[in-house]
Amino acid sequence: MYKQNHLQNVRVVLSHTTHPGNIGAAARAMKTMGLSRLFLIKPRCFPDPQATAMAAGADDIMENALICGSLDEALSGVVLTVGMTARVRGISNEVKLPREAMPLVLQQAATQPVALLFGTEMSGLTNEEVSRAQMLVNIPSAADFSSLNLAAAVQVMSYELAVAALSGQGIASYSMQSDVPQPKIATHEQVEGYMAHLEKTLNEIGFFVTQNPARMMQRLRRLYARSRLEAGEINILRGILSVTSEYNARLRKRYSDEHSDVSQH
Amino acid sequence: MYKQNHLQNVRVVLSHTTHPGNIGAAARAMKTMGLSRLFLIKPRCFPDPQATAMAAGADDIMENALICGSLDEALSGVVLTVGMTARVRGISNEVKLPREAMPLVLQQAATQPVALLFGTEMSGLTNEEVSRAQMLVNIPSAADFSSLNLAAAVQVMSYELAVAALSGQGIASYSMQSDVPQPKIATHEQVEGYMAHLEKTLNEIGFFVTQNPARMMQRLRRLYARSRLEAGEINILRGILSVTSEYNARLRKRYSDEHSDVSQH
Repeated sequence: MYKQNHLQNVRVVLSHTTHPGNIGAAARAMKTMGLSRLFLIKPRCFPDPQATAMAAGADDIMENALICGSLDEALSGVVLTVGMTARVRGISNEVKLPREAMPLVLQQAATQPVALLFGTEMSGLTNEEVSRAQMLVNIPSAADFSSLNLAAAVQVMSYELAVAALSGQGIASYSMQSDVPQPKIATHEQVEGYMAHLEKTLNEIGFFVTQNPARMMQRLRRLYARSRLEAGEINILRGILSVTSEYNARLRKRYSDEHSDVSQH
Repeated sequence: MYKQNHLQNVRVVLSHTTHPGNIGAAARAMKTMGLSRLFLIKPRCFPDPQATAMAAGADDIMENALICGSLDEALSGVVLTVGMTARVRGISNEVKLPREAMPLVLQQAATQPVALLFGTEMSGLTNEEVSRAQMLVNIPSAADFSSLNLAAAVQVMSYELAVAALSGQGIASYSMQSDVPQPKIATHEQVEGYMAHLEKTLNEIGFFVTQNPARMMQRLRRLYARSRLEAGEINILRGILSVTSEYNARLRKRYSDEHSDVSQH
């Protein structure tokens, strides 16, 4: 589904993570978006049962995670490091939005390794870590509450990367997944057949006695046009109209029978 | 930073959440993106210390969370319900990407309440819940590992909504239409009132004799959900149903009048 070879060049680097649960949740977030390469710089506790629990099946990513002793080790071979920052710094590089940054990251990842670098839960990236990044990215957030959970930040960034990868293939082709049977949209003739049938039935049951037929049909057309009727739905709607007519006919007949009884008395 | 009044019309509705930690993490995710209105349908454990721990400061959202006994209660007054789905269903409505959907959600939220509806951790939304949604959204994910954590899904959706608010995409397209009188979209209660009336009438005229009622109503719900019924259209459709039944009532009345004449003779 994704350009797998591109995403395989993307490392998620978590520096000095405090809570092992966040590592597991980050692994799960990565896997949902087609990322697989996790690097951990001096995690406080790893492996850890909490990490495994939060990974919820992303075990392969946990098992293949590389535990590194230093930033340099984690960034070895990387040609582009993207530092995640919660706020714009004093001496700031340009800070990009995820949506601007991810297409550039993906483009680079087409040929060489790139890294998304996440700092600790409490204080984010150190100044030294920021200085190693060629690009800074800030996930936009509420002014009074800007601290995304670490795994939530990994989820948002992985998601943006996946969407960038998808849009390369055309988002349209995604939403029309080939394994999904597409509903058969009704033809013009089928829709017109229904509208005529509807008008006839409404007239028959006396709906137009108190309503302007032309205006009413216009409104009903508009309603059904918005829903883009399917061929199968036309069958259902016309089925209802047929039953309505039969019901109406039965009532008339019953009434006239009763009536003839009356006149016979 | 965000158009607060718009985001305040957005409810996050979590149905039958199993793990209280996910509720707390969802509240945190919402708050980072400027959302505040949390609705919980029969959560297994809430309030709960784990929820509070994971909220990490989003205490106001937790305290103001509304605990609801039913889906109808949670959707009361809502004019647009967006159902989150992990996969495309058998009888599928159109499923949108978050990026396509959120500008539309925001546009609607400019004037009236909307809901983002999330199902349980294990199985997502029930068919009944899906049938109440006018729009389905799927967060694109890896084919072999598509299960986002609940709070991660809330984070992605809230993020997309915040980005839409920031970019002014939703707002711009809304204000461009501001000189056009906006149709008054029917509320959840109005739609449900119509669906109940429709089912009653179809039963009365004998439509269900040859049709499976549950399946039929499901299909009709889907058809009308796509068209996003307006309040005025509900009046027309219910008017048709009334006339369909009334004819019967008129006949009965006329018959009983005739009958009383007969007995007077």
